[in-house]
Formats: sequence, structure tokens, C-alpha cells
Amino acid sequence: MSAFSIIARDSGSFARAGVLHTAHGDVRTPAFVPLASTASVRGLGPAEVVELGYDIVLGNAFHLFLRPGGELIEELGGLHRFMGWPRAIITDSGGFQVFSLGHGTVADEIKGRRGGRGDGAILAIDEDGVRFRSYLDGSERFIAPETSMAVQAQLGSDIVLAFDECTPFNVERDYTARSTERTHRWLERCVNWRTEHAPDDGSLFYGIVQGGVYEDLRAQSLGAVLASGCAGVAIGGSLGREKAQMYEVIEWCTRGLEAVAAERPRHLLGIGDVDDLIRGVELGIDSFDCAMPTRLARHGVALIPDPANRWRLELDRPRWRASPEPLLDGCRCPACSAGLSRGYLHYLARGRELTGARLLTLHNLTFISSLMADLRSAVIDGGLERVAAALRAGATPGGD
Amino acid sequence: MSAFSIIARDSGSFARAGVLHTAHGDVRTPAFVPLASTASVRGLGPAEVVELGYDIVLGNAFHLFLRPGGELIEELGGLHRFMGWPRAIITDSGGFQVFSLGHGTVADEIKGRRGGRGDGAILAIDEDGVRFRSYLDGSERFIAPETSMAVQAQLGSDIVLAFDECTPFNVERDYTARSTERTHRWLERCVNWRTEHAPDDGSLFYGIVQGGVYEDLRAQSLGAVLASGCAGVAIGGSLGREKAQMYEVIEWCTRGLEAVAAERPRHLLGIGDVDDLIRGVELGIDSFDCAMPTRLARHGVALIPDPANRWRLELDRPRWRASPEPLLDGCRCPACSAGLSRGYLHYLARGRELTGARLLTLHNLTFISSLMADLRSAVIDGGLERVAAALRAGATPGGD
Repeated sequence: MSAFSIIARDSGSFARAGVLHTAHGDVRTPAFVPLASTASVRGLGPAEVVELGYDIVLGNAFHLFLRPGGELIEELGGLHRFMGWPRAIITDSGGFQVFSLGHGTVADEIKGRRGGRGDGAILAIDEDGVRFRSYLDGSERFIAPETSMAVQAQLGSDIVLAFDECTPFNVERDYTARSTERTHRWLERCVNWRTEHAPDDGSLFYGIVQGGVYEDLRAQSLGAVLASGCAGVAIGGSLGREKAQMYEVIEWCTRGLEAVAAERPRHLLGIGDVDDLIRGVELGIDSFDCAMPTRLARHGVALIPDPANRWRLELDRPRWRASPEPLLDGCRCPACSAGLSRGYLHYLARGRELTGARLLTLHNLTFISSLMADLRSAVIDGGLERVAAALRAGATPGGD
Repeated sequence: MSAFSIIARDSGSFARAGVLHTAHGDVRTPAFVPLASTASVRGLGPAEVVELGYDIVLGNAFHLFLRPGGELIEELGGLHRFMGWPRAIITDSGGFQVFSLGHGTVADEIKGRRGGRGDGAILAIDEDGVRFRSYLDGSERFIAPETSMAVQAQLGSDIVLAFDECTPFNVERDYTARSTERTHRWLERCVNWRTEHAPDDGSLFYGIVQGGVYEDLRAQSLGAVLASGCAGVAIGGSLGREKAQMYEVIEWCTRGLEAVAAERPRHLLGIGDVDDLIRGVELGIDSFDCAMPTRLARHGVALIPDPANRWRLELDRPRWRASPEPLLDGCRCPACSAGLSRGYLHYLARGRELTGARLLTLHNLTFISSLMADLRSAVIDGGLERVAAALRAGATPGGD
């Protein structure tokens, strides 16, 4: 059986709905993947994440390599058992994070992602791999494609991502081209490591398409990824300076995939704004991961159906101080269904109370889960164009 | 109907089991009261606290007076509605906290309580009240018995505590005597304020017995409190330098109450160590509040049935790094019932992850809830001596 079953296709776009079959159960697609980078969805328990409607979370080989280490997690039964998560796990390879140490936050302007935590630094990048300083204790560490594969195997990941160089958007075409070629050589080393050490471990391997904002480099990269025999394809790297360019880059990739490998699942790395999720589904993306909904929650920002404000409500603003209004009428999250006021959530956000971070995390993940469920149903029922337009105009996900 | 029904008494001690009837439902006693000082049990939702078996939580008039203010909470429907907690609330008057600003942490040696957060300071204490600097913004604030009563009324508390001066243990008898007398004058002002402004608001008023470690002062204070016509009696202030002395001071109070006002409910302020809860129940205490179980959780300490280590397991110790052992066999909390390892909890504690603080909070409150349920059942079934001995020897609360 193929790892991915497409159960419906939209007639007016590249969108499809499907089921990704993993060693830890099925993942309904299109899917959003909440981050559990450091072995927990911050502030939530596994049962709650299941309850919110998620089939899969994302662990991070880079962070877990540094602490507590792949060996320890393997010794304690693998990442699923370690964190008590019974369903599927995709693991980021660490490429993005390790290169963020060097490239800084430039790469994140569009993506809104951060890798390291400021104290780390790249000491050397060469053909072998990357030598860097740990952001945790300043110790010198080395990560190579083989390291990443070994760590992801130790974690017992269901979906393993190739170790790539994530090139930022502000570098020259020439650098992007050379970096992309190295990524392809690293891809081959990843495949070789897996063939030798983990030939039948039940995991799915996704190559990562790089190539920056250059159509021909993206096409070459797509070719290299497909040639590697990977089960799925992830789209990574710089997606441009602005959303229009990002959508164009994504479309180059998914159009290329439609032509030659339509049945392979496609993951878009690090993208999760509401409008990007809608557009991403239309462009044929099957899964997305992003820190946005959970990180915003920890900073007092709730997702609401307000396109004019990028679907964001900043609860720490003074205007909400005395507001009796609920966060979002009709939302099924614990905060909204308990009728908690924006005034209370403002108070918690200002006080940086654990309870506030948690309530908004539950709310934001409910919002995104409902959004993805709406989009999936729409693809299956043939109403994607209408549903996408309504969501873009500010309809409440999961609403009637 | 009386606010408190005693349903069973232990034959070998002052212990009793009862039901405290409040405007927001019944509280089964003896009861532990988790802290929701700043309008949330940190990291938990109200439904979870109910699920853990708690009928009541404690809000704090001092903290809520400073932020967000009693007026705002009243405007948003009172504290129950503000924080979405449907059951009973007892509110601390702020006396302990405001005096902690001045007395520092000396008063806390036995109690393990902290009031202010280090930046505040008392500017003046006089007959009127206390002028102090807010720990939040350095602004000058004033709190008096009437302020505390007004704030607790704005919060809509079910059990209102008198505004007292909490005298530390290291002061002279003379200071304690004068302070206790002032507390009694303040008690009268509290009662007068309530008679005038909140005669029938459905709340229960508890006077606070002061008098330090002096038996005659405690007796005098008990007399003053009972004469005030209060519904219940709280025991506060310095309880001595060590546990033996603390138990003696508590016994003076409860023995006195047994003689003249056995039917009034008794609350012990700020005490919550496992052995103290057991002894407190035997001494006839009906309810306890303490930061301990929740604060320890946020610092990586789990409660386990290990008397030799004060029932504490410090998960951040290196020895738990690779431990596959569960926290506590047979415990029904989410961490234990999911089979999470001490190794994982160690990892979360070291990383100060939200998820770790939350899991241990759930565990510790499960532990204490089970302990109190065991003690209550034992009083009702007539087996307190045996159950208390077993728990002291390291039996698992809630075990078979």
C-alpha cells in the first residue's frame, strides 16, 4: 500500500484531500502540524492535542540532539513514548535550525520562524557538515546529514526530513545554486545512511526542495529530490520577500509535482499564517508546520476571523482591559466555551500567567484545526472555492 | 441552616468530617484549598481543578487589589465569572501579604509562604491601615480593613477573611500583644464594614486568631474572634519555629474551639506539608490553603509517598536523567496514567517547560486531593488512626 491515499481533488485548483498512512496511524490531509520541537506542545498534554483534532506533531532533531540527546530518548523508548504522544510524528532535520544560527533571522522575515535562541553560532560549514556552538551551553557540536538521520532514527520518527542547507533570501543566486547542490549531495548521504542503517524501520523519508526564488533551481532541486526515491517532498528554504512571491515559488514546486509525481505527499515547511494555509491548500500542499499559532499564544495573541488584522487579536492591548466580550463566539475551545472574557485574557496576558499561555494555545490550535477541517471537507465536498473565499472574508472556521 | 454541618467525628482526636455550605456549593471537609491567588490555579483550567476533586480555591485580595483591581473584577461579574470557576472561593484578606512586605521572609520559615515579590515595601503602619509601595509598579498604595472588605465584596468571595496583622515569630511578646490587639480592633472594623455595606451578600466571614506562640494571647484572640460573631475561625500568624511548636499552637486554638464553639468551621492559613495536613486534620482543622503543592510543581518537585524526604521528589536531580520509572505507580494524574517517565519529567523540569510545570501541578494536586479524601473517609469510617499512621509511614494516598 502506498503511504499516501488521495481521496478527493479540487477541480479548480491543485488542492487535494487525503490520508497519510504512518506507523503511528493515519493523518488526515491537508493537515496542520503543531510544533512539539522540544518534546512537548508547550503547555498541553498529548491527550489534549489529540482532542483538538490533530493526528501528527513535529519534533525537532536539532533541539533534541542538543538536549536530552537522541541516545537518551531511544533508551527511554523513542520520542512517542518519551512524550506520551501516541500518533504520528514528523521530525525536522535540524538543517533549518543550525543554519539559522549563522544566517540569523533574515531567513525568517517571511516565515516567522526562529531556529537558535541567540547564543549559538556556526563555526564552520563544509562539505562534511556543520560545526557550531550549542545555544544551551556554548559547547562545540557537529551535525552532518548522517547525524541528523541517526538522531531521527533514535527518536523513532514516522516522517524523517532530509538534512539540508536552508538558504536565506538575501543571498546571491550563485550562493543559492551552490548551496542547493550541496543539499542534493547531502540528500544522497541521507538516503545512503537510511539504506544502510534503517532500511525497514517503517518511517517515511521526505526530501527537501531548495533553490530559493529561482525557478530553474527549484526545478533542478525537485528533480534531485524525486530521483532520491523519497516517499514525500518538503518545500523549504527561502520563499521570497513577500507573500505573492512565496505563493509563486510554492506553485512552481507543486505544478512540477503534479506533472510527474502527483501521488507523493507534499509538506510546506514553517508556514502557518491563516491566509497562507488557505492558499497553500489551493496550491496542493498536504501538510504544514509552523510555530505561529502556539508562539503567538504565549505572547498573548489570539487567532480570530479578522483578515484585516492578519487574523490576530493582541489581548495585551489596553482596549481589552475591561472587555466582557468572549474571545470568539461559537468557538469550542476551553476559553471560549467557558465564556471567559477578553478582559480576563488581557489580565492573564499582561501578567504572563501560565494559564493565559495555555488557554490561548488551546484556542489558537482549535482555530487552526477547525480551519484545516473546513478546507479538507470543502475539497471532499467540492466546495473549496466558496469555503476558501468565505474564510478569507472572515468566516469563523468550524462555524455553521 | 448553619453554614457548616459536621457529619462525623473521630473518637481519638479532634478530627471531624463535614460539609461547608457556601453560595457556590458545598465544600467537603477536611479540605485542601489550592491557590488561585491571582485569579488562576497556575497552568490549569477551572474544569481541571474540579476534576481533581476540589470544591474550593483561594483568591487573594492583596494581589487582585493591585492588579487588575476589585472594581474591574466586579464590573466583569465577580471573581467566579472572571476566572470561570463555578465553585466556592475563599479570599485571603491581604494582611499576610502586606505585612510580608515589611517583615520579609522571616515569617515564612515554617509556613513556606511568600507575600510580596521583593520590590514592595511598607511605608507606614498605623491604626488606620498600611501604606506601602506596590511590588508591580512602585506606586504608593493604602490598604485598611475596610479596603480589604470592599475588595473581597467586589470579588464576590464566598468566604471572606478578616484583615489582620500577621506577626512574625521573631518579635517580642510585647509587640505580638500590641499587634494582636490592633488585629482585634481591625476585626471590629471589618465586621462593621460588612454590616453596613454587605449585610446579606451570602458570604461567610472568618475572623483570624493571632497571638503568636503565646498561649494566653492565642486564648484572648480566640475570644475576640468568637465574640465578633464570625461564621468561621482562621488560625494565622506565627506558628512557631518548628513543627512541634506549630502543632502545639494549633492545638491551643482547636482545643479552645472544641470547648466553646465546636460547630464553627476552622481554617488553617498557609499550611500544606503532607505531615502537617495529617496532623492538622487530627487537631480538628477543617480546611487548609497553601502554595506548596503548586509552587513545588513549578520548581520541578513532585509529591510522592516518601516521608523520609518530606514527601518530595526533586525531578531536576541528575539521578533521574535516564529513569524509565513512572513518577508514582497507581496515581491517577495525567502524567502517571500516561506512563510518562521520570526521565521525561526531569528533562521538562530542567528545560523549565510549561508542560512540565503543568504536569507536576496536576500530579501534586492529585496527590493532595487523594490524601484529603483518604483522611475524610477515615474520619467518616472511624479508621483515622490507622489511615493516618499508614500515610505517615508512606502509604500512597488513594491507594487500595
